[in-house]
Amino acid sequence: MIPPAEIIETLKKEDNFLILTHSTPDGDAFGSALALKSLINQLDKKAEVYTEHPIPVQYQFLPGVNDIKNLAELNVEDFNVLVLLDCNNPSRVNSDKEIIERIKNFAGIRIVIDHHIEDKNDFNALRWISPEEPATGIMIYYLIKALGCKINQSIATALYTALIVDTGNFQFDNTSDRVLAIASEFVRAGARPSYIYQQSFESWSTNRFRLFIKMLNNIDIISSTAIACVRKRDFEETSTVESDTERFVEFLRILKDVNISALFREVEEGFFKVSLRSKGNLDVSMIAREFGGGGHKNASGYRIRASYEEARIKLIEKLKSYKML
Amino acid sequence: MIPPAEIIETLKKEDNFLILTHSTPDGDAFGSALALKSLINQLDKKAEVYTEHPIPVQYQFLPGVNDIKNLAELNVEDFNVLVLLDCNNPSRVNSDKEIIERIKNFAGIRIVIDHHIEDKNDFNALRWISPEEPATGIMIYYLIKALGCKINQSIATALYTALIVDTGNFQFDNTSDRVLAIASEFVRAGARPSYIYQQSFESWSTNRFRLFIKMLNNIDIISSTAIACVRKRDFEETSTVESDTERFVEFLRILKDVNISALFREVEEGFFKVSLRSKGNLDVSMIAREFGGGGHKNASGYRIRASYEEARIKLIEKLKSYKML
Repeated sequence: MIPPAEIIETLKKEDNFLILTHSTPDGDAFGSALALKSLINQLDKKAEVYTEHPIPVQYQFLPGVNDIKNLAELNVEDFNVLVLLDCNNPSRVNSDKEIIERIKNFAGIRIVIDHHIEDKNDFNALRWISPEEPATGIMIYYLIKALGCKINQSIATALYTALIVDTGNFQFDNTSDRVLAIASEFVRAGARPSYIYQQSFESWSTNRFRLFIKMLNNIDIISSTAIACVRKRDFEETSTVESDTERFVEFLRILKDVNISALFREVEEGFFKVSLRSKGNLDVSMIAREFGGGGHKNASGYRIRASYEEARIKLIEKLKSYKML
Repeated sequence: MIPPAEIIETLKKEDNFLILTHSTPDGDAFGSALALKSLINQLDKKAEVYTEHPIPVQYQFLPGVNDIKNLAELNVEDFNVLVLLDCNNPSRVNSDKEIIERIKNFAGIRIVIDHHIEDKNDFNALRWISPEEPATGIMIYYLIKALGCKINQSIATALYTALIVDTGNFQFDNTSDRVLAIASEFVRAGARPSYIYQQSFESWSTNRFRLFIKMLNNIDIISSTAIACVRKRDFEETSTVESDTERFVEFLRILKDVNISALFREVEEGFFKVSLRSKGNLDVSMIAREFGGGGHKNASGYRIRASYEEARIKLIEKLKSYKML
């Protein structure tokens, strides 16, 4: 994997980079952003990462995390180059339209580095999009190699985090011998697997754990599909927030006879974020796209404004129409 | 890591091997046993694996698993060499005293290959015990290398399974750059990570899932210790068996503020198997040894005959006396 020459040249030539990623950032978003900032700093250039605040507790261990600026305070005019990481459409960055407009109107050089399937959008940029890569963090790894830079302990930790979050700690289909060899290289460079795993995956608060048990107690298994829901009142009763549901839907994979799992999260009264997961060749991104969402074959999502009962039935009907249920 | 010359010589010279492992065999037990059999077969020699039957559902995917003989039908006299794998004391093989006696009295050459701390016992054997190794499967890997044999797809699958089961799929402290590099080699040789993960870790029946939810609903968190229990009636109500609790205790690591977790399983009325897990430097094997059990620093266990309330209080007292609670 060799990164596009134009992107390498831009990194060599320019000196003031703005790094952005998608909303509700995960380990690949934070990890690749922090590693890219560290790489640019190695080249003696300035870079800043801006994301939504606050940073979720499970990523607060990442080296350099305290230097991440609050997206709400962003002045895009301060930068020469904008790098959009782990998404390829500016509207993924935030729900605030004004922020998105400012990004869309960015006057400097624009770069997109992402491993998601391309969203149709008119954001003009140097685009490096590799949906076959398991994580954007791996693309940053190849960028570091191409630039002849060093994988120091901070970068190794950030990119190991990116890798394990997007491969489900080496459990998803995208785990290859190459992924494991690169992970081994990160560990040799100072990443500590059990520590990073613990921070990223085992930092559940007791409240989050209570929310999880609530979800399990109400799970609905229809044939080989598991449907779970976290209602607004569940968040309230357990003093939890949306990011506390990270990995809930993946957990349902544990059921041998379940091939598709869906998690509805009621983020506002009557407004649900839906995560879909599948095993093997079942392509749930087709279902997500039917509802205006997107994602990967085995992991995708969409949003729907409806009552829970209505949203649930619509999903079941769509799964049936695709012969997945 | 170079295996002892005497063991290599015995594998080269002898031609009829009996492979045994511990009771309630796990992925490292099955994986290293099947890989060793496959290795010996490559050398054009005879080998048989005997374990308790039935084979748990999560290991029925292992190549060669159908050739595993039932321990209850073992005639030790049929073999020249006995290899004890993933344990170092014949009394770990089974609860049946007669079977243990037959193993102890085995007249041929005896070999022990294990990564557990040595149990004090008088079983005279060529002993290769490396507690610093994350899995017995890794020791078999070095044996294959030392003998110049080939890691075919069956061996790669068996040893990848051994590796992920004993490192918690690369999440425990024993995950090093070397472990990840060897895992990468297994994948290059044909092991399929997501398939093996799914089979080993995600083969839960709905009943097992119900048992898990039952356990979660009754969990007891005291300061930084989580205590869970599966009673005999829980097994009965969900039509599950002891092996269905595999990985239940590991799940409790997910709680950020929990450093020690304990799972009591009532295998007979008033008789409990207890699994202890800890994070970081907390050594729960000391606690297990106080109750006549053993294991590793972060993963150990013991058995106790008592009422649940009594057994629970005894554990709490012992944890307090070690200032772990």
